[in-house]
Amino acid sequence: MTRLLMAAVVGLATALPAAAQFQKPEDAIKYRQSAFTVMANHLGRVGAMAQGRAPFDAKVAADNTAIVSTMSMLPFHAFVPGSDKGAPNRAKAEVWSDGAKFKAAAEKMQAEVAKLDAAAKGGNLDAIKGAMGAVGGACKACHDDFRAERYSN
Amino acid sequence: MTRLLMAAVVGLATALPAAAQFQKPEDAIKYRQSAFTVMANHLGRVGAMAQGRAPFDAKVAADNTAIVSTMSMLPFHAFVPGSDKGAPNRAKAEVWSDGAKFKAAAEKMQAEVAKLDAAAKGGNLDAIKGAMGAVGGACKACHDDFRAERYSN
Repeated sequence: MTRLLMAAVVGLATALPAAAQFQKPEDAIKYRQSAFTVMANHLGRVGAMAQGRAPFDAKVAADNTAIVSTMSMLPFHAFVPGSDKGAPNRAKAEVWSDGAKFKAAAEKMQAEVAKLDAAAKGGNLDAIKGAMGAVGGACKACHDDFRAERYSN
Repeated sequence: MTRLLMAAVVGLATALPAAAQFQKPEDAIKYRQSAFTVMANHLGRVGAMAQGRAPFDAKVAADNTAIVSTMSMLPFHAFVPGSDKGAPNRAKAEVWSDGAKFKAAAEKMQAEVAKLDAAAKGGNLDAIKGAMGAVGGACKACHDDFRAERYSN
């Protein structure tokens, strides 16, 4: 498992994109919302297996966690200064006023997603369930602190 | 290059998600639009290098084509029957009335993206430029046939 986890973490590091290039604030907002949408969809497919709402298929689970892992690295480059406005979005001011805490929350999620991906590659449903719980906790913690209830423009 | 290309194609095959699960047509529309948004952003970063608008960095190019490669497999599972309506979108009726041609167009794009990813892994800018041209052609051909000028709901 340790080697699998290392492989996952190395994989994430190499998947890191360069600093995002966005012409307008609304481009950055659209991009980060899109990345979260794709990530949530594929995480949801694994979650359905973890919760018994879908039959467990180890290959399908691993294919989906690989996509989640790739996506987990993408949105945070797009919270560029000035992109709090420009299109309806739910980013709280704290994203920019407490950037260190936001970065830590993002990295916590990425680390838990890496563990989930490693667990899925291992093919053990119980390990996936445990890792999924930690991913869900990391998502929620960041949403609680940095995502508003309502969209503002 | 052949081995690199094979690796890219095998990588794509294993990245194939299971049949998409969407509760509502608008979920499928939002998902596929999101996947295209992320794909276009990362393709654009490589395109900027190919066109000399950004300095060429082989690692950055390869990191971005890897993301493009992953994204290229995702949207097409979301053109599910009945998802022509439900949210503003630009899918023409031909997506569903000529599904075989649409599938072929998608696979052509995916194949050209795999070649681009292989070229980027090879680190040769001229090879990337050539492959990028073919990707652009495949994108445009599919847009011409299957994407409307205007959004409809």
